[in-house]
Amino acid sequence: MSQEVNADDAIPRIEDIRQAAERIRPHVHRTPVFTSNTVNEISGAQVLFKCENLQKAGAFKARGATNAVFSLSNEQARRGVVTHSSGNHAAALALAAGRRGIPATVVMPDNASEIKKQAVAGYGARIVYCEPTFQAREEALAEIAERTQAAIVHAFDDARVIAGQGTAALELFEQVSEIDTVIAPVGGGGLLSGTALAARSLFPATRVFGAEPRNVDDARQSLKSGRIMPVTGKTSIADGLLTALGTITFPIIRDHVTGIITVSEASIVDAMRLIWERLKLIIEPSAAVAVAALLTQPDEFEGRRVGIILSGGNVDLDKLPWVAGPTP
Amino acid sequence: MSQEVNADDAIPRIEDIRQAAERIRPHVHRTPVFTSNTVNEISGAQVLFKCENLQKAGAFKARGATNAVFSLSNEQARRGVVTHSSGNHAAALALAAGRRGIPATVVMPDNASEIKKQAVAGYGARIVYCEPTFQAREEALAEIAERTQAAIVHAFDDARVIAGQGTAALELFEQVSEIDTVIAPVGGGGLLSGTALAARSLFPATRVFGAEPRNVDDARQSLKSGRIMPVTGKTSIADGLLTALGTITFPIIRDHVTGIITVSEASIVDAMRLIWERLKLIIEPSAAVAVAALLTQPDEFEGRRVGIILSGGNVDLDKLPWVAGPTP
Repeated sequence: MSQEVNADDAIPRIEDIRQAAERIRPHVHRTPVFTSNTVNEISGAQVLFKCENLQKAGAFKARGATNAVFSLSNEQARRGVVTHSSGNHAAALALAAGRRGIPATVVMPDNASEIKKQAVAGYGARIVYCEPTFQAREEALAEIAERTQAAIVHAFDDARVIAGQGTAALELFEQVSEIDTVIAPVGGGGLLSGTALAARSLFPATRVFGAEPRNVDDARQSLKSGRIMPVTGKTSIADGLLTALGTITFPIIRDHVTGIITVSEASIVDAMRLIWERLKLIIEPSAAVAVAALLTQPDEFEGRRVGIILSGGNVDLDKLPWVAGPTP
Repeated sequence: MSQEVNADDAIPRIEDIRQAAERIRPHVHRTPVFTSNTVNEISGAQVLFKCENLQKAGAFKARGATNAVFSLSNEQARRGVVTHSSGNHAAALALAAGRRGIPATVVMPDNASEIKKQAVAGYGARIVYCEPTFQAREEALAEIAERTQAAIVHAFDDARVIAGQGTAALELFEQVSEIDTVIAPVGGGGLLSGTALAARSLFPATRVFGAEPRNVDDARQSLKSGRIMPVTGKTSIADGLLTALGTITFPIIRDHVTGIITVSEASIVDAMRLIWERLKLIIEPSAAVAVAALLTQPDEFEGRRVGIILSGGNVDLDKLPWVAGPTP
């Protein structure tokens, strides 16, 4: 976001997450929880998969975007919403705006994939292309917000979005009992911070782990150094997680998350394939990162009852990692 | 089956299907029903997907095999079960026998895929390899049954198996209301005949369609000629459907099925990909055949409330049809 944020004021409370759940209920799916004997045997844990890959628009992002859009006053809403995103948030915001019947503009880098452009356009949003740099995206966003007075809905550093993402964990705790550990992937931290707030408000003893690619371990580095660290030049197959933490998500994660587990690229591919083969569910690499954390750190999870947020299922079926050749 | 069968005596009644449902309940999944706005928009129908790809061992076959295994007397069961199959029935029978704690032997062609061999062995069955001809399979099966007195559980031409497969449709009609049309893929006809018996016993006006690859349209030819036609030399990506109808399944299908819809190889691949992309569910090509029937015959289904049995989800992820190149 371009304006300054007082993080303390912006941190959602459990009541905000509960209100978000009420607000978004008519517009998003209450996603099912899947289990797998095979995964339980391999991990030695009882694993409960919250299937946000089956969420509208294929990812948990529908929750936060919908909460933000339906939190707007009629006056605000009339002017529309705007964001920049090359991924699931773009489609989610377009979908949410369409449901409220208000205009949405999405700033996308001109090198975004055809599939993602089509998804966003298919939900009825206007796309504004810019150069594929963070600065160009921010500038285009600010210009549009200034000119149209549309409300900016940031992909993660927004209390309404974080509260919305927290509703996935809230539901999970309603659907199954006695979860003692939760794992969510972490990129910008919207899902992880919402998950941590929900889980630890409901059951303070819950352990909440973030999972991120070892190649892009800025969240771990941020917790270690005590300040938001930028992403490195490295990349990862988990293309939803190539983002630094935000000014709101960082303190929540610092204060409420038990630890960050980093995983190799090969373990992400293995985990993705295991879920495809055994649960017959399509999950995207970013979702597989949380599964890889479970499988590569068995000591942390053995004997536990572990909730895993399968964050999304938007995959380019023409570019599957096990088909493309060996992973980095 | 090697012995003669009096088909009339062997045709299950709705009570047999209901008893099968009770019998198998502790051992198989009550699979969920999925919907998709996208599929509804494309087809103009309201489509209800019965997700047997999420069934134990990844296919509806667990239902029939489990019903057969748990229908045996203790005396019979002690001597074990035997079948020949290179596909989902083999794994399903192995699984069911394991649950009852009795030995299972599966005759498989020695060219069966490694994945399928591993699945069968993983469920604890003994595998006997034979040459990849129907005659070699039948002979090996008869020899083992003779020697061990194990009960033969045929993949589809067995009333207990057909009754078990019919429980998928029975459940579907319990889970959702007002279905007027059902589509199931047809190979040997176990699923289609069980589905037709269940659907039309419950609601006689229900239209029940079989779907098969145009390349292997022996079911359509059989209905046309009034006798069981062999499979042709052609093959199909839908490798679960390369089987002629049986002496029990044929008359059921002849008497209770509204029609057989045949589909092209390309339409099977398109349908499979659509389900993967939009429902985030892994289905195998044989399951996609029923979806292809919906999508290629819109006049037949528009405005209808259509149940589709997604029969299985066992796919070799290293051999995806859209990766291998253009389809035949």
